[in-house]
Amino acid sequence: MIFLTRRATFSASHYYWNEAWSAEKNEQVFGRCSRRSGHGHNYTLEVTVAGEPDPVTGFVVDLKWLKAVIEEFVLAEYDHRHLNLEVPEFAAGKMIPTTENIAIATWKRLEAVVNTAAGAHLTAVRIYETPEIFAEYRGEL
Amino acid sequence: MIFLTRRATFSASHYYWNEAWSAEKNEQVFGRCSRRSGHGHNYTLEVTVAGEPDPVTGFVVDLKWLKAVIEEFVLAEYDHRHLNLEVPEFAAGKMIPTTENIAIATWKRLEAVVNTAAGAHLTAVRIYETPEIFAEYRGEL
Amino acid sequence: MIFLTRRATFSASHYYWNEAWSAEKNEQVFGRCSRRSGHGHNYTLEVTVAGEPDPVTGFVVDLKWLKAVIEEFVLAEYDHRHLNLEVPEFAAGKMIPTTENIAIATWKRLEAVVNTAAGAHLTAVRIYETPEIFAEYRGEL
Amino acid sequence: MIFLTRRATFSASHYYWNEAWSAEKNEQVFGRCSRRSGHGHNYTLEVTVAGEPDPVTGFVVDLKWLKAVIEEFVLAEYDHRHLNLEVPEFAAGKMIPTTENIAIATWKRLEAVVNTAAGAHLTAVRIYETPEIFAEYRGEL
Amino acid sequence: MIFLTRRATFSASHYYWNEAWSAEKNEQVFGRCSRRSGHGHNYTLEVTVAGEPDPVTGFVVDLKWLKAVIEEFVLAEYDHRHLNLEVPEFAAGKMIPTTENIAIATWKRLEAVVNTAAGAHLTAVRIYETPEIFAEYRGEL
Amino acid sequence: MIFLTRRATFSASHYYWNEAWSAEKNEQVFGRCSRRSGHGHNYTLEVTVAGEPDPVTGFVVDLKWLKAVIEEFVLAEYDHRHLNLEVPEFAAGKMIPTTENIAIATWKRLEAVVNTAAGAHLTAVRIYETPEIFAEYRGEL
Repeated sequence: MIFLTRRATFSASHYYWNEAWSAEKNEQVFGRCSRRSGHGHNYTLEVTVAGEPDPVTGFVVDLKWLKAVIEEFVLAEYDHRHLNLEVPEFAAGKMIPTTENIAIATWKRLEAVVNTAAGAHLTAVRIYETPEIFAEYRGEL
Repeated sequence: MIFLTRRATFSASHYYWNEAWSAEKNEQVFGRCSRRSGHGHNYTLEVTVAGEPDPVTGFVVDLKWLKAVIEEFVLAEYDHRHLNLEVPEFAAGKMIPTTENIAIATWKRLEAVVNTAAGAHLTAVRIYETPEIFAEYRGEL
Repeated sequence: MIFLTRRATFSASHYYWNEAWSAEKNEQVFGRCSRRSGHGHNYTLEVTVAGEPDPVTGFVVDLKWLKAVIEEFVLAEYDHRHLNLEVPEFAAGKMIPTTENIAIATWKRLEAVVNTAAGAHLTAVRIYETPEIFAEYRGEL
Repeated sequence: MIFLTRRATFSASHYYWNEAWSAEKNEQVFGRCSRRSGHGHNYTLEVTVAGEPDPVTGFVVDLKWLKAVIEEFVLAEYDHRHLNLEVPEFAAGKMIPTTENIAIATWKRLEAVVNTAAGAHLTAVRIYETPEIFAEYRGEL
Repeated sequence: MIFLTRRATFSASHYYWNEAWSAEKNEQVFGRCSRRSGHGHNYTLEVTVAGEPDPVTGFVVDLKWLKAVIEEFVLAEYDHRHLNLEVPEFAAGKMIPTTENIAIATWKRLEAVVNTAAGAHLTAVRIYETPEIFAEYRGEL
Repeated sequence: MIFLTRRATFSASHYYWNEAWSAEKNEQVFGRCSRRSGHGHNYTLEVTVAGEPDPVTGFVVDLKWLKAVIEEFVLAEYDHRHLNLEVPEFAAGKMIPTTENIAIATWKRLEAVVNTAAGAHLTAVRIYETPEIFAEYRGEL
């Protein structure tokens, strides 16, 4: 079994806000992340698939295909967007776009399509908000 | 003469928009950067001062002081902010927050205060929008 | 389950020396690392906690809290220190401050306090001595 | 149990080509990677061994020894080489030098010798072709 | 005046060989770089242009345009190629593809086209062969 | 003219202390850097030479030679050493080993020997104490 990872980046805005709370409570819990004009990050995404290399190609999956999948299913909707305002998973206060939740949402966007690859499956999605903070989701264990 | 550099980071949102243009023109020139919900970056800032090391301390400037200056005069107003909406230099469409203009604006915020340091002066401000794109301003040459 | 990681850095001195050995034996086994004046590194520390994101905050743990914990329990005693001379775990030759042992010592400093966070627990501590050398401890398995 | 990792780099050429296929088929599947003059990369290799730190040295393994092992068993044959033309595992079309296959081949070169270290064993070999693409092999699971 | 830089990467093979010398002499001067099967690198290219930001766009040059120029005039011919065998500047032993010479050749490919941008001109081309080795050319001074 | 740079690293200890001052004054000015057990860093050194590429080799200088020069004249005396206690420039309180002074001292160690290379001369020495702090010396201007 090989664990093959492809990295990608996207630039997005977000803020942290719980609609059920007062502004004071949001400010107290989330600090400067609660400012409603938003701020942003260069996110780095790492998608890991596991499988046996195909003896004919030497590939676990074709990385050109994996790159296209990441672009179509994730970057097209996250890159140069405001996560709270423009991305369905997070819009209308449905889910707060923390690094943890972005990792889970990215997994859900990728799992079914990545797992159509013969003999491979998604094993991890890692999101770096900055080089100092990252979250990894490995699916339901 | 020694060139001493201190790096800092800030996370901010921005968009590119010229108020004198139609939405179509903005979209045509600025592409996805023109989306009005904004997107964001982890900006890296490098501030370079030049001077002779003080024989008593070995310092061109005290880096603890320089760090505090960068925090007070730049990060306090740029970090976790939307540049177009919350930062005076760029607000109300006054100046488009491109990497080039952020470098010039940061220089203007720092020049007078950095140059109060005995025997040292600001020589360069570099802003990385991403690791792939950066702009450097060295003042009026 | 999400694995959430926070990175921090500290600068410290150390040397490798086994009190039970002669100087020759120490030099033979540890090479230039045995020099008694010590040398130093910019260590990078990665602390990983696992848990479910709280549906109210989107957090596995509050990263501001985790940062404060790392500062109080690790950096306050390791940063700008000589590990062999000033840090209890390694002082008086009790334990040699190899990357491996620093990872274990850091785990022991963090485990109880990190695990007070509701629904989260410490799963890994990784120490980079340089970008080329790192050790990870995941507790008693 | 500690997981101790040593990083190394090598510069090599390769191409992707399946001898059983026509040039058209190779070009269709492998794209520009199929060009027969080859292209190259600065590969980064991470070798992870697991074990308990020896109470006498604080080492899981002696990293000077591990470095010498990586140089003798991997770098001496991969660095500044054309993988398809000069390296036995990949020569004569035996195996396509994808990142996945290089990770497996490196594991096979290292496993027996690394496992001669008392109380330690090889647990992972990771190969970065670029910072954006990497493959990890953890042996037969 | 602002110095604006765009980074790009390409993967290429090369070797060092002076056709006027014997194999022994080539091996003696160039060492393992003289091996004729070639080896390769992930090169990083930094292209710097200088000018005043256009008050209408905030741009020294449009970075989307600069990216397209780099792709058309440099990457299309260098990326996934063997510099000695496939790239005109270096083919048939005309010039040895050292980092220094690649920087000069890249400058020559870019200078005229970059300088068609109103109010901007090329000021530096930097090539990283590895993170440890880079060469910068600033034109005829 | 080409500017060719070679990077190297060394790990060293240091502290900041002015012998003419009281302990209180040293602590007040230098903060935690004044602790006498010392602390340390992974320093990165960048040495830049300028010249025309030799048409016969394509080299400004032979980088294998430059690497050997850096190792003999700098790393052999700085790496795995305590700068204040073991390195002549800084010993006995002669000069405080700030990043600025290390850059100047490194320049003085390298200038004469680098300038023996035909057609090349030393133009810059840059020292990174951490990725956030660096000093560059370009000689007497």
